[in-house]
Amino acid sequence: MTSKTNKYLEIDRSEFLSIFEEISKIGWSEIYGMNRLALDENDIKARHMLIKRLKEINSLIRIDDAGNIMGVLEGDTKEIIATGSHLDAVPGGGRFDGTVGVVGALYALRYIVKNKIKTRHSIMAIDFTNEEGSRFQPSKMGSGLTTGVYDKEYIYSRKDAKGITFGEALKLSGFMGDQNNRLMYSPIKSYVELHIEQGPILEAEGYEIGIPHGIVGMVYLEVNFIGEQAHAGTTPIRYRSDALVPAGILIKEIRDYIKSLDDSLRITVGKIDIWPNIHNVIPGIAKLIIDIRSFYNKILSDAIKYIIDISNLIAKKEGNIEVEVKKLWESPRVVFDKKLRDLIINTCQELRLKCKEDIYSWAGHDAQNMSRITKTAMIFIPSHKGKSHTKEEYTSEKDLINGMKLLLNTMLVLDLS
Amino acid sequence: MTSKTNKYLEIDRSEFLSIFEEISKIGWSEIYGMNRLALDENDIKARHMLIKRLKEINSLIRIDDAGNIMGVLEGDTKEIIATGSHLDAVPGGGRFDGTVGVVGALYALRYIVKNKIKTRHSIMAIDFTNEEGSRFQPSKMGSGLTTGVYDKEYIYSRKDAKGITFGEALKLSGFMGDQNNRLMYSPIKSYVELHIEQGPILEAEGYEIGIPHGIVGMVYLEVNFIGEQAHAGTTPIRYRSDALVPAGILIKEIRDYIKSLDDSLRITVGKIDIWPNIHNVIPGIAKLIIDIRSFYNKILSDAIKYIIDISNLIAKKEGNIEVEVKKLWESPRVVFDKKLRDLIINTCQELRLKCKEDIYSWAGHDAQNMSRITKTAMIFIPSHKGKSHTKEEYTSEKDLINGMKLLLNTMLVLDLS
Repeated sequence: MTSKTNKYLEIDRSEFLSIFEEISKIGWSEIYGMNRLALDENDIKARHMLIKRLKEINSLIRIDDAGNIMGVLEGDTKEIIATGSHLDAVPGGGRFDGTVGVVGALYALRYIVKNKIKTRHSIMAIDFTNEEGSRFQPSKMGSGLTTGVYDKEYIYSRKDAKGITFGEALKLSGFMGDQNNRLMYSPIKSYVELHIEQGPILEAEGYEIGIPHGIVGMVYLEVNFIGEQAHAGTTPIRYRSDALVPAGILIKEIRDYIKSLDDSLRITVGKIDIWPNIHNVIPGIAKLIIDIRSFYNKILSDAIKYIIDISNLIAKKEGNIEVEVKKLWESPRVVFDKKLRDLIINTCQELRLKCKEDIYSWAGHDAQNMSRITKTAMIFIPSHKGKSHTKEEYTSEKDLINGMKLLLNTMLVLDLS
Repeated sequence: MTSKTNKYLEIDRSEFLSIFEEISKIGWSEIYGMNRLALDENDIKARHMLIKRLKEINSLIRIDDAGNIMGVLEGDTKEIIATGSHLDAVPGGGRFDGTVGVVGALYALRYIVKNKIKTRHSIMAIDFTNEEGSRFQPSKMGSGLTTGVYDKEYIYSRKDAKGITFGEALKLSGFMGDQNNRLMYSPIKSYVELHIEQGPILEAEGYEIGIPHGIVGMVYLEVNFIGEQAHAGTTPIRYRSDALVPAGILIKEIRDYIKSLDDSLRITVGKIDIWPNIHNVIPGIAKLIIDIRSFYNKILSDAIKYIIDISNLIAKKEGNIEVEVKKLWESPRVVFDKKLRDLIINTCQELRLKCKEDIYSWAGHDAQNMSRITKTAMIFIPSHKGKSHTKEEYTSEKDLINGMKLLLNTMLVLDLS
């Protein structure tokens, strides 16, 4: 088998789509959307289905101490070419986020076995536990533990809304595996993750595939304006220290700032809480949580500085308003492996798929953690109208198949490289 | 006794202050502030204390079907000169709001009896039930039922946070009285209410007394901006319909609008709720509740029109944002009786108290309902730093005594008029 022939590998559309259907319908309802939180009843069903389909092709099953499932086809060497994603979903989410990448990985292994392809490397399909962080915080937990980003004690003690710890849920699920199976101890040569874009760009610009440069850097800032709570009737305007007014001005100023920076920066005020939040009381405190993302470190740090400065300026202008800005959380950008990206782009072009190279992942993915231990890249397929984390999430069969073809060809090209 | 002598009546400061202390400390703690919701344990204690002190001077006690307590000293005629306020408080509120007017009424009756003053009119001291509306909505419930503003069925079915109806609470309290005792069936000649200003104007401008023109008109508007909920990372700025952005702009625009109208208009955005209010999700809905108050009907209606117009304009400019504005509630202004106000102002001047005439009540009071059945006016005394509905609420002994003197003299002048 040569690289040449790989490029023309045709997948079995109906098998691929039927596996996707079988797994993606577990926990799905038209009314609610997806009901499949990490290690819940539906996630466990989906995991058993994944294992069943992996075992059918005699792949080895490994499970680590984060409950991550790894199906392995042994090759001539122990060196591993890995792919995967996650089966858990946000409450009421869609059928595609994560599942596409896990089914893509499963199908890749099935294709290799069914077509009797002898690989030089071992090939691995991965389902990472609790990527979404909807049941247990933080998100990307499984990939984080298996790559050494998080401590086991910390992760095991994290609780869901009912007070069940991740450690307890893992034991109960039957997916408590061996620490020795962690990916950080495995000779992984590369990791490629197939995922829906979750944004509107590919579809809007007419691309079939996106190969992101990496994952943007993210910062959450908390801005607190502190004024003075008072009676909305009896307090004249000139005596007020209304904390919501500077918050409103800040929201407007941020909107004007990001407009000028087009697509290199995204800032969102997604959360606002005011006290006491009673219609006839002047707000004494307004707390905003601001989500800032950019692939460019300078743009990101400039944006943070801008928000600190403008918040202080607004508070000063309003008078009698205190302001506090604190960084709640940050995640540095991830730059994907250049050679791996080039290889995928090249494969994409040879498959005659219209491929957008100048794109970033604006959301976190397990690939982020994987990039700490191996050469990593991602393949994006279009999301209709950019919708994700909602039951309206949709990717066409054609786009699913394009993604699958590119993932499979990429892995086989990698095997030969 | 002549009008002349009344003006120089000196009250017994220590008796007045000790009654005030005795009643205002029921339910009070330095840490929490006032804990005396309508018909709760502390309100019941305070009511019994009021009745005890009224009975000591042989005043008749009447209770109506709203639980309003009326202490009456019969005069030569059945015609009544009434005064009063309320003993209930907002949670964590102060010792002065309402209590000043009830203790003022109680002390006025005690003064008349102890000084053997023979009045032409019957003199009545009133404690209205549930003025604050903190336990049962709506506020000014007792004065509303006794003046025929509300139906009995409606009021009795109103529930507190524990699901107890007003009717049940009233029965349990032991203060279920007779419908025939309602003030709407009584020959009331005038009603004067002594109350703290709850705002900062009197103190800041150096006045000892305020005689408000009336109570401002109030309107609550709800403005809903409806955009589209989306992922804060993956959605480019140009694809967003962020509902919080127009809300922020509206808050700023309202601030600019009220600044230009100085003290004839007060607008407050005291409540904002956005959905889903998660830091990494673009808000799909932003709901604002806007409190608008003015004594001038034209200014009030102009302000409502302005908010509707500017909300629509902002939504249009932002694009892809729907807006809905609805009126949640309104309360027309109340103009107090001119002759009664003039009489109080005159009495105030003769007592050499520095009196502000150009002032409004920017909050609702039982006087609002009383104005429907009789000639009504109010006397304001200063609130330190304008604080009210907080444990920091404070009015000095000197100001309490000034208010008491003016109330007592006003009633005795009224008796002769």
